Amino acid sequence: MIESVNNEKIKTYSKLLDKKYRDKENMFLISTEHLVLEAIKKDIIIEIFLLKNKENKFGNVTYVTEPVMRKLTNLNTLPSVVAVVKKIEPKEIKGNVLMLDGIQDPGNLGTIIRSSVAFNVDTIILGDNTVDIYNEKVLRAAEGMIFNINFIKQNLIESIKILKQKNYKILGTKVDTGKDIKDIHLDKYALLVGNEGNGVNKELLELCDENLYININNKCESLNVAIATSIIIYELNKNTPTI
Amino acid sequence: MIESVNNEKIKTYSKLLDKKYRDKENMFLISTEHLVLEAIKKDIIIEIFLLKNKENKFGNVTYVTEPVMRKLTNLNTLPSVVAVVKKIEPKEIKGNVLMLDGIQDPGNLGTIIRSSVAFNVDTIILGDNTVDIYNEKVLRAAEGMIFNINFIKQNLIESIKILKQKNYKILGTKVDTGKDIKDIHLDKYALLVGNEGNGVNKELLELCDENLYININNKCESLNVAIATSIIIYELNKNTPTI
Repeated sequence: MIESVNNEKIKTYSKLLDKKYRDKENMFLISTEHLVLEAIKKDIIIEIFLLKNKENKFGNVTYVTEPVMRKLTNLNTLPSVVAVVKKIEPKEIKGNVLMLDGIQDPGNLGTIIRSSVAFNVDTIILGDNTVDIYNEKVLRAAEGMIFNINFIKQNLIESIKILKQKNYKILGTKVDTGKDIKDIHLDKYALLVGNEGNGVNKELLELCDENLYININNKCESLNVAIATSIIIYELNKNTPTI
Repeated sequence: MIESVNNEKIKTYSKLLDKKYRDKENMFLISTEHLVLEAIKKDIIIEIFLLKNKENKFGNVTYVTEPVMRKLTNLNTLPSVVAVVKKIEPKEIKGNVLMLDGIQDPGNLGTIIRSSVAFNVDTIILGDNTVDIYNEKVLRAAEGMIFNINFIKQNLIESIKILKQKNYKILGTKVDTGKDIKDIHLDKYALLVGNEGNGVNKELLELCDENLYININNKCESLNVAIATSIIIYELNKNTPTI
């Protein structure tokens, strides 16, 4: 049992709340029972910290006190379990691809990840300005779906070049021009969605083969980005074979 | 210019941050430029408070200092304008109806409102346990769309009775059974969606004429409620005439 917040291991691991250290150490923290159980299956666990007196469903754990657990999270509600896990290695691109250009809100990113699993996106490419997927709030909003999708961090101009070589059709998104999403039928796609306020970067939009839009009532200027993305991948999924 | 946080008017209006007072006084606070301009058009303004030294785009305003403005909001970022406005009177039900059973998260409710305007929902009926639409965070997430839709607060068992008398088909939502949403074609609908954790209350589900589901990959247990609702009303909107 670790009882001291000054324990060296706790001090080291608590640094993983900071993106800089996650990137440097190639590790991150997870803090729901469901995620920890998934991480055990994936064999990426480094260490599991369980609140004292809590039931152990996890195997090898280190018990900690509440103040120690508090050091391992930024969430308001104290979790009963936190695990230190290895980041998952990116895999090669196949199937449907979603590129995210500057998504800022962790809730939006988490929700997009969840919808992406639901609608058979295989790879999410995170552009330079997109919030870190290993952010606690992203992990929460993704509801454990992070282990069911391939993530690649890459400059999107670079990604589009590679995807074009692989014969992907690059689909951009604009609020009001382009092709209505219900008229798109593709075997596989690479969809580009943009920032909450500004949409997709112009330079990237110019590299797209086609622009898509969702037909909405003109009283509403635009949809929330997680909603728009989910509707597009829902629609594309209806028309593409499941792999 | 009001400079004192103890000003009687400010003390009274700041109580509107609390749902109890909003319900009692039939007024609420709005805190974005866009919403204030919309409220002016709707002629429901009681008073506008503008931060001193800010440009006045609103007509008759009362200038206030930063500490005074702070009393009129719970938002972290201090708004430059806050207006006290009258609640909008509910109108009679027509067209497409969305019933919300116990939506708890203000961000989810705001996003659902925004999508509802986009996809031609005319009336949203808020069941007993749904978060207040006049909550600041709901208003923020709705991006000014609150004035473009008819809201009714009602017990949903009561609503379903009334809607059936009006020949509405009541559509429930379940995670995995019922009719695939892409196969539904109706002239008008009354859709019932449920709470983030528990879905729609069983007693209400039994009153539905049909249950809908969204076809998702079984790796994903469920979608976020705002996403699911938006996808359903997007799909229903494709197949129903715009009024």
